[in-house]
Amino acid sequence: MNYKVLFVILDGVGDHTIKDLGSKTPLEAAKKPNIDYLAKYGENGMIYPIDIGVTPGSDTAHLSLFGYDPYRDYPGRGVFEALGTGIELKKGDVAFRVNVATVDDQLRVIDRRAGRNDYGIEQLFQELNGIEIEGIKIILKHTVEHRGVLVLRGSGLSKEVEGNDPHKVGTRVKEFKALDKNAEKIAEILEMLTKKFYELARKHPINEERKRKGLLPANYLLIRGAGMLKEVEPFEKKWGLKASFIAGAAMYLGVARYVGIEAFAPPGATGTVKTSLISKAESAIAERDKKDIVFVHIKATDSLSHDRKPIDKKKFIELIDRQFFSRVKDEFDIIIVTGDHTTSSVFGEHTADPVPLLIYSTIAQRKDSVKNFAERKSYKGILGFVKGRDLMRIIINKLGKSKKFGF
Amino acid sequence: MNYKVLFVILDGVGDHTIKDLGSKTPLEAAKKPNIDYLAKYGENGMIYPIDIGVTPGSDTAHLSLFGYDPYRDYPGRGVFEALGTGIELKKGDVAFRVNVATVDDQLRVIDRRAGRNDYGIEQLFQELNGIEIEGIKIILKHTVEHRGVLVLRGSGLSKEVEGNDPHKVGTRVKEFKALDKNAEKIAEILEMLTKKFYELARKHPINEERKRKGLLPANYLLIRGAGMLKEVEPFEKKWGLKASFIAGAAMYLGVARYVGIEAFAPPGATGTVKTSLISKAESAIAERDKKDIVFVHIKATDSLSHDRKPIDKKKFIELIDRQFFSRVKDEFDIIIVTGDHTTSSVFGEHTADPVPLLIYSTIAQRKDSVKNFAERKSYKGILGFVKGRDLMRIIINKLGKSKKFGF
Repeated sequence: MNYKVLFVILDGVGDHTIKDLGSKTPLEAAKKPNIDYLAKYGENGMIYPIDIGVTPGSDTAHLSLFGYDPYRDYPGRGVFEALGTGIELKKGDVAFRVNVATVDDQLRVIDRRAGRNDYGIEQLFQELNGIEIEGIKIILKHTVEHRGVLVLRGSGLSKEVEGNDPHKVGTRVKEFKALDKNAEKIAEILEMLTKKFYELARKHPINEERKRKGLLPANYLLIRGAGMLKEVEPFEKKWGLKASFIAGAAMYLGVARYVGIEAFAPPGATGTVKTSLISKAESAIAERDKKDIVFVHIKATDSLSHDRKPIDKKKFIELIDRQFFSRVKDEFDIIIVTGDHTTSSVFGEHTADPVPLLIYSTIAQRKDSVKNFAERKSYKGILGFVKGRDLMRIIINKLGKSKKFGF
Repeated sequence: MNYKVLFVILDGVGDHTIKDLGSKTPLEAAKKPNIDYLAKYGENGMIYPIDIGVTPGSDTAHLSLFGYDPYRDYPGRGVFEALGTGIELKKGDVAFRVNVATVDDQLRVIDRRAGRNDYGIEQLFQELNGIEIEGIKIILKHTVEHRGVLVLRGSGLSKEVEGNDPHKVGTRVKEFKALDKNAEKIAEILEMLTKKFYELARKHPINEERKRKGLLPANYLLIRGAGMLKEVEPFEKKWGLKASFIAGAAMYLGVARYVGIEAFAPPGATGTVKTSLISKAESAIAERDKKDIVFVHIKATDSLSHDRKPIDKKKFIELIDRQFFSRVKDEFDIIIVTGDHTTSSVFGEHTADPVPLLIYSTIAQRKDSVKNFAERKSYKGILGFVKGRDLMRIIINKLGKSKKFGF
C-alpha cells in the first residue's frame, strides 16, 4: 500500500494562557472543529522540538522535525536564506544574510534597514552581482524589503568569519573578523566588497532618487549569518519517503532544500496573515499524488505572537481550520499537526515550552481520550512527551515501515 | 523586569503509601493549603533528580538541581563537608569526613562514633590542627557530635585513597590504601596522622574525664570521603542569576558554595525538626531583594523518613506549610517546590522513585488541572516527568530568559 502523509507545521502555535482569552491559550480558545476532529480520532502528546528547556529557533526546529540533529547538521543561517531564494549552492560556497543599511560619512549606522524600503536595491545589487574579487565570484541577490543574500564562490573560503553588523544605531559599522587563520582571506574580500558597495552607492543615481522621494539612502551592506553546506543524508534516502515542502516564507524553503526535500511556495502563499490557505490546501493535495509525505508550513501564527496579538492568533487559527483543514482532513492516510516551537504572546518571543502534537491515522493506531489540539489537553494523550528528533521515526512506525532492531 | 524566584527543596519529601496514614503518602495525607495553592495555580509534574531508576544522594541531587552534571562535577563528599563548615578550600587540598571512634588495644572498633558524644573532641582536634606532617599542613575541625572535617594542604596530593573505616564493629581498623601511584604519599601521611592521634588520645586527660563520666574514649580517627575541588562554572555565570542558598545543615551549604552560591544558615536553622521555619521564611524574603533566586533547604522531612516516622513527617510538612509557605507564597514571581529525592518511610532509605515538582509563576504559564502537591497528583500535570539536570533550564525559560538556539 502506498500510504500518504500530511505533516502540518503551524509556526510558533504553542502559547501561554492569556487573560483576554478567558485565561486560555489561543489554541484553547479557538473554534477549530476540523483540527479537533483529528485530535479526537488520533493520538496526542507534546513535543519538545529540540529538547527540554531549550528554546528553538525556527530553522533548528525544522531540521529537528525533519529528523536531523540540529547540533550536528546546522550549516549556518546564510545557507537556508540562499537556498530559500533559489540559489543553487555548491560545495565550498559561503552564504550570508545581507541588510542594506543607511550610514553617515563616518560609517555610523543611521538605519540598519534603510527605512525598510526596497526602492532601487535590486538595481544596486545587479551592479555587483557576478563580479570577481581576488578570484572569488560574488553572487548578490535581493529578496524582500531591505534584505538580500550574498554568496562567495571560489576555493579556499571559510565560514569562520564574524559579520560587520554592529546591531546598534549610532555605532560605526564593525570590521569583519576572521575567527581562524583560514578565514583571513574571506574577511578581506568582504571588507573590499562592502567598501566597493559604499563607493558605488554614495554617488549612484538610485540614491539621488531615493533622496527626492524622501527615502533614506541605501548605502551600506551589513553582512552576517555565514553558512556553508554540510554533508547531510538526503531526506528520501534517510527515511525512505519522497517529500514535498510547501511554505510561503523563503527561509523555510531553504531548510527543506538543504535536506533534499523539494520545496516551493504555491501561488498566493506569502508567509503572512494574508497568505492563501486555500492555495496551500490545494497544493498539498496535488503533491500527494506525486509524493509520500507532504509538509505544509504556515507562518503567521508565529508573527502574531511576536506582535503580542493573541486574539488575532486565535482568529487566524480558526481561519486555518476553516480554509485549510476542512479541505485536507479526509485526503490523507496519516495527518500530523504540530508547531516548530511555542511563541509566547506574553513575552513576544519563542520559548522552550513544549508544543501540542497530534498524529491521526486511518491505518493503525490507539486513539486516546484527548478531544482537542491544545496545550492543556494534548499533554494527556498517549504519545506523552516526545522530542523533535524522535518524530520522523514515530511517523515511519505509524506507516508500518519501521525497521526491526534484532530478530 | 527583575523577577524574583524562590526554589524550595524539601529533603526526601517523596515517600511511599503508608497504612497508618490511610494508605496515603505523608504528602498526600498532610493538610497543606498554601503549598496546594501553588500547585493549583501552577504547573505540576514529577522529577527524577538524577535519572530514572537512580537513587540520589542528597549531595549529587543538589548538584543536579543546581543544573550541574553530578557524574562529571562531583568532587567527593569531603569537599562539601569542608566548604559547609566554612573552610576555604584551595586548589590541590584534599578534604575528608572524619568520625572520632573508640577502639581497643588491638585497634578493633568498639564504637564507630565514640558514643556520639562530643565531649572534649574539639580540644583533641585543636592539638593537631595546624601541625605539619612531611610538609603537608593538617586542618582538623570539629563539627557536630563525633564528626569533623580533615583537610590536607600541600603539593602533590591525590584523592585516590581509600579510607580506614572498616564500617563494622569488632573489626580492626583498615590501613589507608593508595588507589594509584600518586596517592602513596597521602596514604602514608594519613597513616602517620591517625597513629599520632591515637597516641595523643590514649594518654590525654580528656579521655580520663570521659571515662569518669561513663563515656567511651574518643581515641581513633576514622577517615573517609576524600574530595578535591574541581573546576565548575560558577552558578551566576552559568545561569545568569544571582543566588542565595539557605539551609541549616552544613553539608548542603557546602554543595551550594562549591558551585559559587552564597550560602548560610539563618538564626535558628538547625537542620532538625526544631529548626526555625519562620526564620527561614524571613531570611528568604530578605535575600530576595539582593538576589534573583533564593534556594531554601528544609532537612527534617528526610530525617523523619530515615527514622520511619511517616506520621511525624506528615505533621512536619503541615508545619512547613503553616510557618514557611504562608509567609512566602505571595512574595515571589516564581516559586518552585520539589525534593532532592524520595526517602521511603517503608525502607528508611532514599529510593529512586520520582519526586513531586511544582512551578508556580505569576508571569506566564499554562496552569494545569492538578490541585495538590503529592506523588499521585503531581504526575498528571503539564510538566510531565523531567530530570534534575533540566530544571534550571526550565526555570530560565519561565523567566523569559532562555537563549534561542538558531533563529
